Amino acid sequence: MFVLGIDPGVSRCGYGGAVRDRRGYHAVAAGVITTSVREPLPARLAALARELRALMGEHRPTVVVVERVFFQTNVRTAMSVGQASGLALATAAEAGCEVVQYTANEVKQAVAGYGSATKEQVQRMVAVLLGLREPPAPSDVADALALAICHLTVAPRARRIAASAARGGRP
Amino acid sequence: MFVLGIDPGVSRCGYGGAVRDRRGYHAVAAGVITTSVREPLPARLAALARELRALMGEHRPTVVVVERVFFQTNVRTAMSVGQASGLALATAAEAGCEVVQYTANEVKQAVAGYGSATKEQVQRMVAVLLGLREPPAPSDVADALALAICHLTVAPRARRIAASAARGGRP
Repeated sequence: MFVLGIDPGVSRCGYGGAVRDRRGYHAVAAGVITTSVREPLPARLAALARELRALMGEHRPTVVVVERVFFQTNVRTAMSVGQASGLALATAAEAGCEVVQYTANEVKQAVAGYGSATKEQVQRMVAVLLGLREPPAPSDVADALALAICHLTVAPRARRIAASAARGGRP
Repeated sequence: MFVLGIDPGVSRCGYGGAVRDRRGYHAVAAGVITTSVREPLPARLAALARELRALMGEHRPTVVVVERVFFQTNVRTAMSVGQASGLALATAAEAGCEVVQYTANEVKQAVAGYGSATKEQVQRMVAVLLGLREPPAPSDVADALALAICHLTVAPRARRIAASAARGGRP
């Protein structure tokens, strides 16, 4: 199962793909889509949509994981994160991928073991799990890979629980 | 100049196209794109993107006007309005249209003459300007038509000011 994580943003949209086998997690693709602040917003969003479509077309992920964002912090950032996440979710669904969302806390819980882990702790855990010397840089890529690892961790557990419940057993 | 207004939303996305000639404003197209709350969000956003592309392809507007939204009210609504507006802006730019954004206050100012007009006053003015007996229903359509009328009112004035400034005169 190839899982592609997407950390949505208009200026910088991080992506990172990972797979899991018996030996652990492996990063397969990673990068950042950027758009220029000198361009008008509609053109930037159109460019982001094109890049996301190209990304899905090239890598054909089984599952796309997009961070579920809440609006609590900077209002201007929040608006553009919402716009980028809308494009990421629509593009992934149109490409026929399964699309899943996790909150930042769910990612921290799955990757670092506790929901109040710092951003740096999560990034170090991403490096450890992927067998890298350093946390992936820039941080948008590390965040996207954390989303992919979160799903690779959570999904098999959720399947086991569902299968156990179907057999009438305890999870 | 055919101007298509879009009132972005995931559950209900209103659109309304208008033109202006010597006799006034005329509505050319109007409707609401809806997506089912029973579908998962990524599928709903993908459906909205498809419908918006079809709308641009069918009507080929010169200018697309999307409401510029700010996050101050309901946080859940805000998120989905941001996602829908991202799709509307990207789709319009990809279709080669000029894309313009106005705030709700700018629309009220342009259509009803003052920025603190109520939603109902704006809708009644939309009916008057388009020569309709009743405000267009549902309200999403009236809001979208108000966006189109706003641009048809503001754009010629902005062009006159720019032309006058270029001649070194007063606006």
